[in-house]
Amino acid sequence: MSPFDHLHLEIPESNKKRIVIIGGGFGGIQLVKSLRKSNYQIVLLDRHNYHTFQPLLYQVATAGLEPDSIAGALRQLFEKHQDFYFRMARVTGVDPERKVIKTLIGELDYDLLVIANGSKTNYFGDEEMYKRTFPMKQIPQALDLRSHMLQNFEQTVLATEHEEKNRLTNFVIVGGGPTGVEVAGALGELKKHVLPKDYPDIDFDIMKLHLVDAGPRLLAGMSEKSSEKAEKYLSAFDVDVRLNTMLKSYDGEDVTLNDGTIIPAKTVIWAAGVTGNIMDGLPKDSIKGGRIIVNEFSEVKGLQDVYAIGDIAGMYSDEFPKGHPMVAPVAIQQAINVANNLKRANKQKGPKAFKYRDKGSMATIGRNKAVVDLPKFHFGGLFAWMVWMFVHLMSIVGFRNRLVILTNWVWNYMTYDRGTRLIIRTFVRNKNYKPGDTL
Amino acid sequence: MSPFDHLHLEIPESNKKRIVIIGGGFGGIQLVKSLRKSNYQIVLLDRHNYHTFQPLLYQVATAGLEPDSIAGALRQLFEKHQDFYFRMARVTGVDPERKVIKTLIGELDYDLLVIANGSKTNYFGDEEMYKRTFPMKQIPQALDLRSHMLQNFEQTVLATEHEEKNRLTNFVIVGGGPTGVEVAGALGELKKHVLPKDYPDIDFDIMKLHLVDAGPRLLAGMSEKSSEKAEKYLSAFDVDVRLNTMLKSYDGEDVTLNDGTIIPAKTVIWAAGVTGNIMDGLPKDSIKGGRIIVNEFSEVKGLQDVYAIGDIAGMYSDEFPKGHPMVAPVAIQQAINVANNLKRANKQKGPKAFKYRDKGSMATIGRNKAVVDLPKFHFGGLFAWMVWMFVHLMSIVGFRNRLVILTNWVWNYMTYDRGTRLIIRTFVRNKNYKPGDTL
Repeated sequence: MSPFDHLHLEIPESNKKRIVIIGGGFGGIQLVKSLRKSNYQIVLLDRHNYHTFQPLLYQVATAGLEPDSIAGALRQLFEKHQDFYFRMARVTGVDPERKVIKTLIGELDYDLLVIANGSKTNYFGDEEMYKRTFPMKQIPQALDLRSHMLQNFEQTVLATEHEEKNRLTNFVIVGGGPTGVEVAGALGELKKHVLPKDYPDIDFDIMKLHLVDAGPRLLAGMSEKSSEKAEKYLSAFDVDVRLNTMLKSYDGEDVTLNDGTIIPAKTVIWAAGVTGNIMDGLPKDSIKGGRIIVNEFSEVKGLQDVYAIGDIAGMYSDEFPKGHPMVAPVAIQQAINVANNLKRANKQKGPKAFKYRDKGSMATIGRNKAVVDLPKFHFGGLFAWMVWMFVHLMSIVGFRNRLVILTNWVWNYMTYDRGTRLIIRTFVRNKNYKPGDTL
Repeated sequence: MSPFDHLHLEIPESNKKRIVIIGGGFGGIQLVKSLRKSNYQIVLLDRHNYHTFQPLLYQVATAGLEPDSIAGALRQLFEKHQDFYFRMARVTGVDPERKVIKTLIGELDYDLLVIANGSKTNYFGDEEMYKRTFPMKQIPQALDLRSHMLQNFEQTVLATEHEEKNRLTNFVIVGGGPTGVEVAGALGELKKHVLPKDYPDIDFDIMKLHLVDAGPRLLAGMSEKSSEKAEKYLSAFDVDVRLNTMLKSYDGEDVTLNDGTIIPAKTVIWAAGVTGNIMDGLPKDSIKGGRIIVNEFSEVKGLQDVYAIGDIAGMYSDEFPKGHPMVAPVAIQQAINVANNLKRANKQKGPKAFKYRDKGSMATIGRNKAVVDLPKFHFGGLFAWMVWMFVHLMSIVGFRNRLVILTNWVWNYMTYDRGTRLIIRTFVRNKNYKPGDTL
C-alpha cells in the first residue's frame, strides 16, 4: 500500500480541451499566462508548490536573501485564472499512446501535453561527486549549502589544527558558468566584508576560494571581453581561478585536481552543468544529448499533441547544433510561441516557427561589479551591476518579492551586512538525495 | 571516536574573571548586554547560532513571517563587545565541584556560571503526544508545522473521501495559553481570508479548528475579562473552544478527548505547557517543579558562584509559590538584577533582592483583535491589537528585523495575503526528535 492511496489526481471535466503542463518553471508559468484567455482547460503540475527564480538562488545560498524572496507560490500566481488547476504531483512518466501522464498519485489524461520540466544538475555519472558536493538548482539545496557553510565557520572557531581550519573554510566551486562565477563572487564578498565581523577569532587569510573550470575561459556563453572582466573581478576577491582544469576525485576532505594539486576542502559546490529531466515513456529516438528532440514548433519528435519547451527541449538546427542555451529567456520565448501557435490553430492558421531573440546575458560578481553582454555591446563595472540589479528586480514575479528583495539589497549594500545568517536546517549531507533524484 | 574529536572548546585566557552564560534566550542576551562594561570575560553558549523572538513564532508557523524576521544571529548582536566569546555548543552538564561545564565538544571552566537555558515543551511524559503532535518552541518546529499544513491542503485537493478531506484540514490545538490562542487565531484568519483564494476547489466549511484546554478558561495567566474576550474573538473565527477538556489519546489520525468525543485530525499542535531544561550534575535537592531552585538573588540552592535566571529558575516565595511566570519579562528583569548585583559586589556592596515588575501581558487573535492586561486596566479590540503590534515591533532585536516585519505586516494587512506559502522542508513527522530532546 502506498502512502498516497487515498489520493487521486482528478480534474473536473470541462467542455474545453485540456492542456497539461509539466513544470512550473519559467516556461511553464509563461505558458499559463499566455494561454489565460484561450479556449483550453489548463492543468499545471509541479512537485513543488512554488516557482523558483533561479537567477537569484546563489543569494539564498550565500545568506543574502530568504527563500520567500525568490519564490512564488504557484496557486497564488494564478488565483484569478478560470478553468485552471494546479496540482502538486511528481510526474514519473508519459504514455503517448493512451494520452495520459503518470504520477505518484495516479494518471491524468490530456488532449495536449507540454513538457516543461527543465533540467537537473549533471554529475556526468560520477556517484562520488553526487554524494559529496553541493548542487545549486533548488531552494532546499541552497539552504543546505548555507547551513553547512555557517556550521563550518562555527567549527573553525573550535578547531585547533591549522590544516583543519583550512579545510573548514576552503571552498572549491566546480564550473565557471554564471552560477559558479556568481557564487564565487558572493563568497568573496562574505569573506571580505561580512564574516570577519562575525568571527573575530578566525584569521580569514586561511579561507581560500577556488573556481575550477574544464574550459579555457569563464562564462563560456558570454563574450571574451566579459570572461576577462569576470576573471579580473574575481581575482580582486582573491578567488583562485583555474581554467582547463577538472576534478579528479573528492573524498569529502580533499579535492584532487587532474594536474595533481590537492586542495583540502569540506565544501565543494557543483555548478558544472545541467541535463534534461527525461521522464519515462518517451520514444527512444526522441531523446538526444539529454534533451527531448523537438521541431521548430516545439513539437516532440514522433509524437502527436506533445510539446517540449525550455531546458528539456532540444531544438537542434544548423544555427543551434547543440540546441538553444538552457536559460530562462529561451523557455519564456518558446512558451509564448507555443501559445501563439495554439491560438492560430484555433483560427485555422498554420504555426509559426520559433526564432530565438537573444536579448543579452549578464552575471554579477559581488559589490558594484557585473558584466553585461548586449547583442552588439559589452560592458562591465558599476553600471553593469546596476543594470543587473534592475533587470533581475523587474523580472521577478510579484510586487511583494520586489519590495523585499530591494529592502534586503539596500540593507546589505549600506551595512556590508547579511540578514540571514541563521543555521536553521540540521544539516546531514545530502541525506534526502538519492541517485537520479533531481531534488 | 566522536565526530567532534577535532574540535575543542578553548577560550583565550584573560586577566578578568570568566562568566559562562548558558543560553542565548531573553535572559542570556540581556545579561550579555548588561555586563558589557563590567570587569568580566563573557562566554555565551547556545546550541543554535541565533536568538529566537518566541512571541512571534506562531507567525512563522502560520506563514506570516520568515524565520529571519524573528531571529537574530548571536554573533551579530554582540560583534562590538570586547572579551566576549560566543560558542555554538550543546551543554550536557555541569560539575560544580570542579567549576566546569560539559559540552559535546569538551569542558570549559568558569568563575561564575549563569544557567539561562530556558524551557522545553512539556509532554508530561506522554510518548504518544511527543511523537505525533507539533510543538511550538523552536524555529525548525514552526517551519515543520507550516510545511505539514500546506502539504495537507495540497492533499485535500486530491482526496476523494469527505472524511479524509475533513481529517486533512482539521486542527486540534492543545493548550489555551497565549501560544494556543494566537495559533488558533492565525489559523482562523488563514481559513477565512487566505486559503479560499489559493484552494478554490476546497470547501472550507469542512475545516474545523478545535482549541482544547484542561482548565476552566483561556489565557489563565491573564484577567478574566481578557479570557472572555479571547473566547469571543475565537468564536468569531468558528474556533471550537473546549474548556475543562483533555486529550485522552491520539493515533495520528483521530484525537480522542476525555469526554469521549472523537475528532479526525492529521494535525495536533501541542502548546500545553513547558518545563525547565534541567541539565546533568546539579544537586538533586536544587530541583523542584521542573526548575532549579534559586534564592532572591538568583543564586542556585546549595552551589557557589552559580546563578539561574528565566524559565529554568524557580524563585519560590510566598508571593510566587510556583515561581514566577515563564515569560520573557521575568528573564530580562532577572538578568538585569544579576548584572547589577555583580557590579555592586565589585564595589563591595551587598546584593539586592529580585522584585518582579509585572508590566502587563497581551495576546492577539487575528486581524484587528487582541487583548491587553495592564496592571490596573484591561482592554481589547482594535486598539489592543495596535498596542500588541507596536510593543512586539519595538521589542524585537535589530532595526532590520523591525523593517522586514513591518513590511510583511502591512502587506498582509492590505492584501489579506501571506507571502510565505512555500513548502520547502520535506516533512517527515518529528523524524529529528528523540524523547528528552528539546529541539
